[in-house]
Parts: sequence; structure tokens; C-alpha cells
Amino acid sequence: MEIDQSPVQGKARPLSRARSLLEALPGKAKAEVIGFAKSVRKLGQDDPRRITHSLKVGLALTVVSFIYYLRPLYKSFGEAGIWAVLTVVVIFEFTVGGTLSKSFNRGLATLLAGALGLGAQYLASLSGEKGQPFVLGIFVFLLAAASTFTRFFPRIKARYDYGVLIFILTFSMVSVSGYRVEELVVLASQRLSTILVGAAICIVVSICICPVWAGENLHNSAASNMENLASYLEGFGGEYFQSGEGSNSDRSFLQGYKKVLNSKPTEDTMANLARWEPGHGRFGFRHPWKQYLKIGALSRQCAYQIEILNGYIKSDNQVPLEFRCKIQESCTQISAECGKALKSLASAIKTMTIPSSTNVHVENSKTAVKDLQISLKAVSLEHDQELLAILPGATVASILVEIVISVEKISESVHELSNLAHFKSVEPTVSPEKPQLLHRGAINPVLDGDSDHVVITIHETSTGLQENENPKAPKIGQRVEL
Amino acid sequence: MEIDQSPVQGKARPLSRARSLLEALPGKAKAEVIGFAKSVRKLGQDDPRRITHSLKVGLALTVVSFIYYLRPLYKSFGEAGIWAVLTVVVIFEFTVGGTLSKSFNRGLATLLAGALGLGAQYLASLSGEKGQPFVLGIFVFLLAAASTFTRFFPRIKARYDYGVLIFILTFSMVSVSGYRVEELVVLASQRLSTILVGAAICIVVSICICPVWAGENLHNSAASNMENLASYLEGFGGEYFQSGEGSNSDRSFLQGYKKVLNSKPTEDTMANLARWEPGHGRFGFRHPWKQYLKIGALSRQCAYQIEILNGYIKSDNQVPLEFRCKIQESCTQISAECGKALKSLASAIKTMTIPSSTNVHVENSKTAVKDLQISLKAVSLEHDQELLAILPGATVASILVEIVISVEKISESVHELSNLAHFKSVEPTVSPEKPQLLHRGAINPVLDGDSDHVVITIHETSTGLQENENPKAPKIGQRVEL
Repeated sequence: MEIDQSPVQGKARPLSRARSLLEALPGKAKAEVIGFAKSVRKLGQDDPRRITHSLKVGLALTVVSFIYYLRPLYKSFGEAGIWAVLTVVVIFEFTVGGTLSKSFNRGLATLLAGALGLGAQYLASLSGEKGQPFVLGIFVFLLAAASTFTRFFPRIKARYDYGVLIFILTFSMVSVSGYRVEELVVLASQRLSTILVGAAICIVVSICICPVWAGENLHNSAASNMENLASYLEGFGGEYFQSGEGSNSDRSFLQGYKKVLNSKPTEDTMANLARWEPGHGRFGFRHPWKQYLKIGALSRQCAYQIEILNGYIKSDNQVPLEFRCKIQESCTQISAECGKALKSLASAIKTMTIPSSTNVHVENSKTAVKDLQISLKAVSLEHDQELLAILPGATVASILVEIVISVEKISESVHELSNLAHFKSVEPTVSPEKPQLLHRGAINPVLDGDSDHVVITIHETSTGLQENENPKAPKIGQRVEL
Repeated sequence: MEIDQSPVQGKARPLSRARSLLEALPGKAKAEVIGFAKSVRKLGQDDPRRITHSLKVGLALTVVSFIYYLRPLYKSFGEAGIWAVLTVVVIFEFTVGGTLSKSFNRGLATLLAGALGLGAQYLASLSGEKGQPFVLGIFVFLLAAASTFTRFFPRIKARYDYGVLIFILTFSMVSVSGYRVEELVVLASQRLSTILVGAAICIVVSICICPVWAGENLHNSAASNMENLASYLEGFGGEYFQSGEGSNSDRSFLQGYKKVLNSKPTEDTMANLARWEPGHGRFGFRHPWKQYLKIGALSRQCAYQIEILNGYIKSDNQVPLEFRCKIQESCTQISAECGKALKSLASAIKTMTIPSSTNVHVENSKTAVKDLQISLKAVSLEHDQELLAILPGATVASILVEIVISVEKISESVHELSNLAHFKSVEPTVSPEKPQLLHRGAINPVLDGDSDHVVITIHETSTGLQENENPKAPKIGQRVEL
């Protein structure tokens, strides 16, 4: 606990000095500093773009501050140069779309409100020296109240909220400031030009140095949401039927889906910002961003189902072993195949290729549903089984069947996206998944001819499934990603 | 389609003039104007506080603009008076908590950054005329980058995001502006005092005229979320078992729960803002706002279950009539009693009284669960029932049982809240619900002695339930809200 004796001497070796300072700290403070350092490191590691973004903001501000130092620029902008600094600070957003949206909003709102403000001043000046403040006061009141009210419109709130704010701000400032109109025109043009300079610096830095595109974020989040759902479903069978005594000590894959439950606001924001972005990389200007919201809603639907399913993993497993053994194979198969379908959809989105291999997994999961139905039919014939006892297991089976329907809907919406966005039809050269490894003990039973007389009650869109008794056997004319 | 001939003459009767203008518009534009007017009206009707808020913003801005007109004030503030206008526009938020949070953030950040900026300027001036811009540039870069990075910390993002923004802004402006230090001190003090004036006006208007408290919003949203869930559950039985052919043409009560699914971000924001608010009305300064987040999470859990349940209302009802009749009474009873329990919890939150009548409904729903279990036990004895056919119905029953557990958890968390926030123990004089009317055909069957040998598998916290065969019969020593 000794206090550092040499605060000056260590100048040449800042690192060792910092270390000695750290050692001198009392235990609790030291732990806090280390904890803080760790959380900083984690934030940076989780998303290195955060570090780049911080450096970009620093750079843009440094560049704009040189406007003040380089004399020729200073003279042409005058005092208003400070508005360029202000613009950079408030406009620079994490994503390109955010920066563009704010630039556009700020520029247009300043222009509009400036013109209106000048008009208001002129009108007010007609009412004489004494009347002017009151007329202006009424104008400010009416415009501020009306504009504030428009911010409650959901569409305006989502896209033009900042613009309305700047509109009120500029109108009040222009109409209220005691300047004469001629002075105001000069001032307004100065302010506009500095805003343009500030916005231009922001846009250039934002786009040219490691750009973060809201559209790409939305695209990737759609894929990662599906991966989270898929990880759960692929692990579910092993987790539920082995009562968690398997070799899986790391169960973090069972938590990922929770992120999907509350994904709506982030996705809505990203979709709104993506509309402002020009075409970039693999995304055209008119990329169907709205379709991602549809995919997102369906993914959340599936996440809700998984949330209910998850309740049954946690609860004490009181379902009779006999019944669980009956449904184990087909349930594990359904869950694993749904997981694989979602994984292949996620990889199709990532690589922007047509999700051709998904259909196989969806069909496999449907076949497994039929196997499950056969198993359930067999159950009803035994008299020793009580419905009450097997109910939790039956519910799990029932929800898994619902999940198959959800996954099929997700698959359809991703196919729609692949049509709208003209995905390539090329398969990725290296399969991004390793089906053989991820396939947890889900060997489909070859049922003894039973499947010939199955009554199909679950959504059936394709025929010719009954013939294919082993769902893992590749079908003729269909590419399989195994 | 005639054009209004008299644009000046109508001055005396603006209403009739507006009408004639409206009539002159071509059909499509007219429809759009009417549509717009309707949506404005709806926005205002949905929440009249929106109108008050807009008027309050107008008022605050008008008041602050008089700083410019009243000469003595103008002289003492000088040019910096414009910052008061700017402060009002950006600080005035819908809720008192929002306004206070922004005021505090802006004030403290300006003070801190101003002091730091002066220090930076002094240090930079030591490095001579030529070195100064570069030293300042490095300062701005480092501080902006570091501060921007802190905005990624979730806790800072939630509470101090605006403060960090203003910190970067003020630091850049102070350190960059080419003034001498003596001038800057004057300027900074002017700016601070104008910010104080602006913030003071905002806070006074925000609190004194129809205040909107974030805490009260959070409190009410907890209650309304529960009411939405309750409306669904009370209506579910009739909707599911009567195949939607009942007299209920208005099914909007089946949609309310969807609002709960995505309630998390709003609740988080409100809870953060509520911490800034002083004690108001029925809420003390240290009101347990965090508990509302816990209640919110449990309500969402229940909403997820209802979302799954809702899927079974929509799907074709292929469950054999015989089975449906067996579970109809107890399922309707479970659902209705859960709904009543939630309604009474909601009303307890609204009136801030201890939710004493909830327990009766929770216990009733548990009794109904036992009745359901008896019915299900009876099912297994019949050989003509196929498990596969009755599976959808059995799943509905199973999810309803889960909902009972959810409702019990919600009830516990509301009881916790009533402890933490010292709710009154007085019952409301007028019961806010009308149980007899909302109780849709849920007459509990008095089972013939079967309940004596039921094996209880569902969470049971109280005993003495078996004796109470009619769950609607009030228990001794417990107040019933019927």
C-alpha cells in the first residue's frame, strides 16, 4: 500500500510508471480499475468497429477544428465556424445511414426553417416596433407547438425526428434573434455553409474509413438471429432427452435465442437507416430492406416457441421413460433438422446465395413429424400410459411440430428475399456447417412400412415424401449440402 | 372542382373559409387532407398529453424568446442568449424525468468540459504559437475518441449518453475557439448561465403544467400490460371452445397482448428516467422502480405463452368434440381465473393497494388445474381416443397450466412491489372490475369426490384447497372482490 514516491522520474517509461501506480492503489480500487479495463477490452473485442468508430469521431473533429486554425478558412466562415464543430459532434453516428440521415435532416431543416424564420421576421416587422415581439412570440409558439406535435407521428418519429428538432431550433433562433434581415441572410448562409462543411467531413470519414452500414448490420443480424435459433434447436434433443447429464458442460448455446426475443426495435431502426444508404458492396440502392423486418418477425415467432420449449427443459422431467423413448428419436430429428434448415438459411443469407439446401432439411423435418405421428398413434394403443403423465412430453412434441411450421415460413420468407435481392444461385464452395458433427444422435428409424398409410395433417406442400423412407438419403435432382 | 374565388374576403370567418378551401381541392388531395386530419385527431385522442406537451414546448420557447426582447436581460446575456433558446429546444422532453436528465447532463457536462477545455488551451499555449494547433488537435482527438467509446458502455448509454455528447461538444468548442483565456471565462460563464436559465424554464414548465412523469408512465404501463393479458385470458375460453361463432364480433381484446411482447425497451427507458424524478403524487423519491422491470419481464413471459396459445385459436380445430367437451369447463375456468387474477393485480397497482383479492383467483385457477388433471386422467381410460388427435387440445391445456404458474409469479412480484412501495391495505370502495359480466360461462363442475385422491404435480404453495370444491365460494378469513 505504499504511495508512489517518484511521480516525475518515470516520464521516460510511462508503462512501468503506470504499473507502479497501479500497484500503489489499495486493493479495492485496484480491483475496480482492473474490472474497468477488462470491460473496456470486452467492449472492444465484442465489436472492434466500436474502436474504429471512436477513432473516426476523433479524426473528424480534429479535421474540422483545423478550420479554426487555417486562417483563410477562418476568415471566410467567421464566428459561424463553430457550427461546423457542433455539426460534426451531433451528426456523426455509428452507421453510415445514421450519419446520412442526420446530415440530410439537419441540412434541409436548417434551410426550410431559415427561410420561414426570415419570412416571419418580415411579417412581424410590418406590425411596428411595439407589436413585433408579440407577433414573433405568436409565430414561435404556433410553429413550435405544431412541429412538436408532428414528432408523435410514428413515421415522422422514425425518420425525421431530428429534422423537426432542428427545424424548431433554427426557426426560433432566426426569428427571435434581434438582427436585421440583411445581416440574417449573411448569417444564415454562413451557417448553412458551415453545416455543409461539417456534414461533408462526417460523410467522407464515415464512408471512406471502415464504413459501418446499417443495411449490412440488418442483413447480418437476420443471419445471426437464425444461427442463434439453430444452435438451440440442434442442441435441444440432447439436452431434453439426456436430462442434461451429457458431456455438454457449456450450455451457452441454449441462451443465444433470448437475444432474438427483443430484436424488434434494433431491426426497425436499422431498416429505417438502411433506406438512407447508397448501394454498397453486395447491396444495391433498392435492396428490399423491408423483407428483413418480415423475416425478423417470423424469427421472433420461432423464438417465442423456443422460449416455451425451454421451460420444459428446466422443469423436473417427470415424463415416463417409456414414452420419452418413443418420441426421442423423432423429436430429436425434428429439432436437429429444423436447426440445420435455419443454419443453411443463415449461411445462404451470409453468402447471398439461393438457399437450395434448406428444402432438404425442411422436408426431413416433416418426415420426422410423420414418424412422430406414428409413434404417437402407437402410444394411444397402450392402456398403461396416462395422458396426464405424458402431457409435458406430448406438449414438447406438439411445440416442435409448430416450430417446423415456423421454420418453413422463415424459409419461404428467405426465398422471397433471395428473389427480391437477386441472390446468386452458386453454392458456397466450402459448406459453412458440419452436419455430421452437429447431428446429435438423430438417426432416423426406417419404419417397417408403416409410413404407407399415414394420414398427413401437417402442412404438406410437396408430394413424393412417403417413398423416401430415410430422410437423410439425398433425393434425385436435389443438391444436398452434406 | 372550382377554385376558391375569395381568398381575402373570408378573413372574418376562418372556419367557413377553410371549409370552402377544402371543398375546392381535387378529390384525391381532399381525401388525403381528411385522412391527415383524422390521424391528427386520433393521435390527440389516444393520448391528450401529446397536445399538452406540444403547447408546453411552445410556451417554454416563447418565454425564453422574451429574453431577447426585454432589453435588460439581453444586455446581461449578450449574444449567448441564443444558447438559452437552443437549450430549451433540445432539453424539453415529454416526461419530467427526461427533461431533468437532459438538464443535469447538459449542465454538468458543460461545466466539466468547459474547465477541461480551458486547461487544454492553457497547456497548448505553453508550446508556443506554432505548436499550439497541433497540441490542441491531439487533445481534441484523444478526448473525442475516448468519450465516444464510453458511449458504448450500456450503463453510460442508458443514463449519460446526452451528457457525453455535450461534453465532447463543449470541450471541442472551448479548446478550439481561438479566444484568449480571459475572454473564454466570460463566455463560458455566460453560456452556463443561459443554459441554467433555459433549463430552469424547461423544468418549471415541465413540472408545473400538466406534468408527465416517467415513473407514473412505468407504473401505469405495468397495470395496462396486465389488463391486456387479462382481457385475452378472460376471452380465451369462449373463443377457443365456441370456434369463434359466439356473439363476439369485436375481437380486439385478442390483440392487446401483442403490445406486451415488445414492451421491454419502453419500460427500460421509463425506469431509467424515473430515477431522475423527485417524489411526486403517490410515488416517493426512492420508489422501487427496478421492481417494475421484474414485473415487466414476467408479464412478457406470460405474453409469449399467450402468443403460442393464440396459434391454436387460429388453427383449424380438429380436436374431437368429445375431448374438447371434457377439458372445456376446467380450461375455461383456468383461463378466466388467471384473467381475473391479473385484472385484480392491475387494479391493485392502479389504486396502490395490497392485492388481497388476487390470491382467491390464483387458488381458484389451481383448483381448476386439478379438475383438469382429473378430466385428463379420465381420458386415458378410454381406448377410442387417439393421442395424436387430441394433441392440440392437450397442448392448449398444458400451456394453460404453465400460464397459471406465470400468473402466480406475477402475483408474487406484485406483492413484493406492494411491500417495497408500502401499498395501502385498504380495498378500493368501488370494484374496478365486473367479474360477473366478464366471467364467460366458467361454471366450475362440482366433481363427485374424485378430488380426494388427486396427485398434485403443479406448484402447490397452500394447503386446504381440496376441501374447497367450489372455487368461487369465498373462503373464511379472505376478502373476495366479487
